Amino acid sequence: MSMVLLGFSMSPLSNGEGVGKYVARSLEIVDKSGVDYRLNPMGTILEGDWNDVFGVVKQCFERMKKDCNRISCSIKVDYRKGAKGRLHAKVMSVEKRLGKKLRT
Amino acid sequence: MSMVLLGFSMSPLSNGEGVGKYVARSLEIVDKSGVDYRLNPMGTILEGDWNDVFGVVKQCFERMKKDCNRISCSIKVDYRKGAKGRLHAKVMSVEKRLGKKLRT
Amino acid sequence: MSMVLLGFSMSPLSNGEGVGKYVARSLEIVDKSGVDYRLNPMGTILEGDWNDVFGVVKQCFERMKKDCNRISCSIKVDYRKGAKGRLHAKVMSVEKRLGKKLRT
Amino acid sequence: MSMVLLGFSMSPLSNGEGVGKYVARSLEIVDKSGVDYRLNPMGTILEGDWNDVFGVVKQCFERMKKDCNRISCSIKVDYRKGAKGRLHAKVMSVEKRLGKKLRT
Repeated sequence: MSMVLLGFSMSPLSNGEGVGKYVARSLEIVDKSGVDYRLNPMGTILEGDWNDVFGVVKQCFERMKKDCNRISCSIKVDYRKGAKGRLHAKVMSVEKRLGKKLRT
Repeated sequence: MSMVLLGFSMSPLSNGEGVGKYVARSLEIVDKSGVDYRLNPMGTILEGDWNDVFGVVKQCFERMKKDCNRISCSIKVDYRKGAKGRLHAKVMSVEKRLGKKLRT
Repeated sequence: MSMVLLGFSMSPLSNGEGVGKYVARSLEIVDKSGVDYRLNPMGTILEGDWNDVFGVVKQCFERMKKDCNRISCSIKVDYRKGAKGRLHAKVMSVEKRLGKKLRT
Repeated sequence: MSMVLLGFSMSPLSNGEGVGKYVARSLEIVDKSGVDYRLNPMGTILEGDWNDVFGVVKQCFERMKKDCNRISCSIKVDYRKGAKGRLHAKVMSVEKRLGKKLRT
């Protein structure tokens, strides 16, 4: 069991410049997965065990490849031993250090 | 003039596992830059002209290298012709397609 | 079965600025995995089925977390329906278009 | 003056699944730039001063946006104080540690 943060963005290259339809489908999968997440303007961040978060990414991929011939996916993983609840804590920690609210 | 979204995360590899101090300094620079941004648990997203957003990233790097011997920085750029205000619009667009609020 | 290219780089943030020892261990795992790969100055590119290539990344992670308290990992996946042998073909294809050898 | 390694990949999302034509144009710019580089199956790695390497990326972007309405670009920067010639040295260093040739 290894808790990680995993940020990812996944888009077709083959289906034109508007990819919102495909992103929405992925978010439907993410939202129903039971894995905690946050959506931002460039991607989605998951927090959970390595197998669970990569499992969600794979589900999104399997759905997208049904009608997309080329797909690009960027993933970033941040592991810190023993850390949990970082989806909440990291932004607050930066704000606390600076003593002010930031745009989130 | 090319409006882009630029997401980035920048950390020292040389200064131990807790990098919050360095991230906070970067956010101080971002927050004062005048460039619109959103902070998330794995990085910061800027919206602006190519030169302006890369200028902010460079300022963060210049500050960090004063006391960090090794630095890793990931950057992702998303350009869409004629698009503006995507820092606000992209998340709402996904929520609208799905007809529900997502975690942000 | 989905053949993909997967490029990744994985480093500890917690173990000082020289990370060669940890990278070498990962390459030992990659080289013995049976998955086709190419090492470059910033990472390693694997070609294979989704499950196989992500399995190799997970093995590298499991090894690294034995003695690294914080780990950062960037992954990029490029899927193209029906494509194989892209580890060889992509560089040659660019050279062919330009009609000259490039630095590789 | 800050010598860095910069790896990048830049593709249109708006111009269909085959992006070789656009990649080839970028490599023409890279190859003529005078900046040292290595092409690999998923991107190009530049070595040089921060301003020079980001200047090359910007030139590639300016060219691509002439006929691509949506562009995605991933960049990774690795800075290590005082280090040079890493385009050559990093792969050899891993091979030396393992005492064998790897696939490159």
